Amino acid sequence: MDCIFCKIIEGSIPSAKVYESENVIAFKDIQPAAPVHILIIPKKHIPTMNDVTEEDGPVIAEVFAAAREIAQQLGIAESGYRLINNVNSDGGQVVYHLHIHLLGGEKLGALVGNSVS
Amino acid sequence: MDCIFCKIIEGSIPSAKVYESENVIAFKDIQPAAPVHILIIPKKHIPTMNDVTEEDGPVIAEVFAAAREIAQQLGIAESGYRLINNVNSDGGQVVYHLHIHLLGGEKLGALVGNSVS
Repeated sequence: MDCIFCKIIEGSIPSAKVYESENVIAFKDIQPAAPVHILIIPKKHIPTMNDVTEEDGPVIAEVFAAAREIAQQLGIAESGYRLINNVNSDGGQVVYHLHIHLLGGEKLGALVGNSVS
Repeated sequence: MDCIFCKIIEGSIPSAKVYESENVIAFKDIQPAAPVHILIIPKKHIPTMNDVTEEDGPVIAEVFAAAREIAQQLGIAESGYRLINNVNSDGGQVVYHLHIHLLGGEKLGALVGNSVS
């Protein structure tokens, strides 16, 4: 499996892990876009949100449960945060293993859709 | 209930609905930030992602299943899209009824965390 996130899960590529459960792990983004920038991923290799099946529903719920727990642990639950999932080219997806960005630790910018931001 | 999204759900405020199931509805954002800009919400009044309980897990999975289905229906699943959930002040949350932004229809800008975007 030539997937960088699968290698992080199996431990052959190091990461700054902040959370791990049976089905989900989370680690710091190596190019943070905010003071807090965590990636939360299912351990199952699901390339994009388009590839999630009905049977994957519980793991999607678990990924967001992890997001809530991490935001609490890092002390940004009340101040606030943003969860982002990029899908395919227009979404700006870079790694094709489903991941949720958790951003916070400062007042985040406006929700910007277009490329002239 | 003085919640604008609850009023949209019950129909007392109009919306351009694009999807409805037993537990989820989706409608066009009235201030689109991209050619496609849909809001997907659970019918249950959950203020923020912080307030999601373990028993709400299935509805969170349903919200993302709706996102996949809507992206397919609107023809942007393959070109790509971005899903965003803003939480509390730092996240830029405006309406306190959990909602997921679905943005697409063009190449979206970089994932910008800070306020100087």
